[in-house]
Amino acid sequence: MSFEFRVEATAGCARKGRLITPHGEVETPVFMPVGTLASVKGASQDILEDLGVQILLGNTYHLYLRPGIEQVRKLGGLHRFMSWNRAILTDSGGFQVFSLNDLRKVTEEGVMFRSHLDGSSHFFSPESAMEAQIGLGADIIMAFDECTEHPASGERVRQSMELTLRWAERSKRYFEAHKHEVPWANHAGPDIPSRQPGEARRLAKLPSAEPARRPAPTSADATQALFGIVQGGMDPALRQESAQRTIETGFPGYAIGGLSVGEPRALTREIVEATIQHLPADKPRYLMGVGTPEEIVEYATLGIDMMDCVLPTRAARHGLLFTSEGKVSIKQARYAGDQGPLDPRCGCRVCVRYSRAYLRHLYASNEVLAQVLNTIHNLSFYLDTMRAVRHSIELGEKVRSLSEVWSPPEP
Amino acid sequence: MSFEFRVEATAGCARKGRLITPHGEVETPVFMPVGTLASVKGASQDILEDLGVQILLGNTYHLYLRPGIEQVRKLGGLHRFMSWNRAILTDSGGFQVFSLNDLRKVTEEGVMFRSHLDGSSHFFSPESAMEAQIGLGADIIMAFDECTEHPASGERVRQSMELTLRWAERSKRYFEAHKHEVPWANHAGPDIPSRQPGEARRLAKLPSAEPARRPAPTSADATQALFGIVQGGMDPALRQESAQRTIETGFPGYAIGGLSVGEPRALTREIVEATIQHLPADKPRYLMGVGTPEEIVEYATLGIDMMDCVLPTRAARHGLLFTSEGKVSIKQARYAGDQGPLDPRCGCRVCVRYSRAYLRHLYASNEVLAQVLNTIHNLSFYLDTMRAVRHSIELGEKVRSLSEVWSPPEP
Repeated sequence: MSFEFRVEATAGCARKGRLITPHGEVETPVFMPVGTLASVKGASQDILEDLGVQILLGNTYHLYLRPGIEQVRKLGGLHRFMSWNRAILTDSGGFQVFSLNDLRKVTEEGVMFRSHLDGSSHFFSPESAMEAQIGLGADIIMAFDECTEHPASGERVRQSMELTLRWAERSKRYFEAHKHEVPWANHAGPDIPSRQPGEARRLAKLPSAEPARRPAPTSADATQALFGIVQGGMDPALRQESAQRTIETGFPGYAIGGLSVGEPRALTREIVEATIQHLPADKPRYLMGVGTPEEIVEYATLGIDMMDCVLPTRAARHGLLFTSEGKVSIKQARYAGDQGPLDPRCGCRVCVRYSRAYLRHLYASNEVLAQVLNTIHNLSFYLDTMRAVRHSIELGEKVRSLSEVWSPPEP
Repeated sequence: MSFEFRVEATAGCARKGRLITPHGEVETPVFMPVGTLASVKGASQDILEDLGVQILLGNTYHLYLRPGIEQVRKLGGLHRFMSWNRAILTDSGGFQVFSLNDLRKVTEEGVMFRSHLDGSSHFFSPESAMEAQIGLGADIIMAFDECTEHPASGERVRQSMELTLRWAERSKRYFEAHKHEVPWANHAGPDIPSRQPGEARRLAKLPSAEPARRPAPTSADATQALFGIVQGGMDPALRQESAQRTIETGFPGYAIGGLSVGEPRALTREIVEATIQHLPADKPRYLMGVGTPEEIVEYATLGIDMMDCVLPTRAARHGLLFTSEGKVSIKQARYAGDQGPLDPRCGCRVCVRYSRAYLRHLYASNEVLAQVLNTIHNLSFYLDTMRAVRHSIELGEKVRSLSEVWSPPEP
């Protein structure tokens, strides 16, 4: 068995669990940082490990264009290519095809689209999206779906949902026939060759040495897990039908797609609640593309196990920082002389070491270190938030909001 | 005594020594990474510490414009502002005034120049350059000099040298009268307040904690050291005269300025040799603005103790990497499938972990991690090179070239 999900504790609807993947375990509810092009922009893999990241998200669409699936596959898959030996999830490319391409053409067979880089024509089908994701070799991969736009007519939402259901079956069929082609299949040993200090440092005159990096071995029959995606627009009845019919096809995990596409937040919540109740309790539930710090706490309390969003890393690049005291726009002149830490309740390496004045200076001076440090803090804030949520669930405590997570303990 | 230099071993003209500064010791010969705007572009202070950086260079001209001297002074000086508790050296601003300003106007009193950021007018004199450097509070600061252009007539070089000598006296006079105004003067305790894990992490629900950073205390009477700068263009006789008269004024260290300004490398070497022989053996010798990996080895063998250059960090940003096998332009398509490490003889965290294929992908995709990783490797290569040179001197071995430094040991 190469993929497993265990629910270890519950508090209300929220669950604390554990994904067991060929590249290590992932404690849930989990927020997955986005590493679009095999890199979480601004954060090195060492830093991500130090932050406690257990799973990263990669974008099939972007990696398909650069450096190309075949290139990554030949280099041993995404884990080895980017030297990341913990878990990875890839999306199917569907969302980017829909969001980055105004000229896409959807047929029963698949989607014709143009590269946002050079305008060249490409085609994704359920089969080719599976082939791409098998070549990349993430631990968890996603069925190829159509992300229904919002707003859309009832008829349009139903047709789109039906297409996604047919594509889910085709995704699964292709996956089952080809899943053992994953680049690291049947590799019993470590899949990232790491050099020993003695090998690495043949410079005789230098006495010091780096510690060796030893990846966790993958088991001999390990392969990927394919998740299904529930669509159905903003219609609870269609969401229920989509959930039930996706479950009939059968997957080891279920995602809720087609949300956070411009609808009001109350509606997102309503649809999440309406969908979750039809998803099996013993399988992981992944809400795609959310959210703010407040939202990731809220959805975890509803029973969501996995989330991803570019918000913490993208906001960091724009000087927008999430703290226990609310959002901080570090570019503001008011911080130029502020000797305090960015977030006095945060223990990340940025908050422990640097002042708001210094972070403001770096941002105002367009120093690359601004992006690096801002990204580390925002990711730390998201990960610490989820860590605290998991801890509360473990204690059987209901977490109600972000501010409760970050409030000081009662005296 | 807040500044001291000890020669601990020699091999030919080369010396291994130690600078003792109010912010720690610096082993020489040393290469000083450049942190123009209170940041070594792409490398966080943690990384610099891990690389073994003992001294950084800051640029007075750039810091004067952003965030401003008074701002840094109010925030406790440059060490505290950027949270760097090891040694810092600042230049006087003279070189940037000359290299970045075509419209500068030099008088006996000083230099009128325009900001490269907004064109605003500013004036640096020996006194104001000292005031600025005292406000920044580096451990080692530089006299205000005129960097003579090359080529220049004999008469022009002499007049420029005489001006630099008069400015050296004015720099010293101002410095002696004001040196106890350094922001960290008379602070017997740590000058960077660091939070305890208990203070930092008041988030009760999180059990883990970061280690506290405890800066080294500065002694109660510690202050800065002002170095003189030898000019004299490409004329050995004028260099000798400049050295002798600068020594008459009297400084705890001497820099060789006005080189690496476009002259052939053989001439640079000739002038360095012609100047060094007139500098006192018991004082540190700083060759400003050099050089390539080959050059820093060469100048160390001639008896230079300190060097600085933007080359490793700037080249990194352009994908040019220095290795034991020569220069690597990582953007080249030939590296797209190269699974080997950037430099098989290097033990830095980049070479131990990532492949050339991944580094090439990051650069080609314009990922910010490219700059971060390239910068770490290039700095590591420079620092390891100097470390090996020091080790050789300690063993009494003459080091002749970079390739000798990085050659594998004899079987």
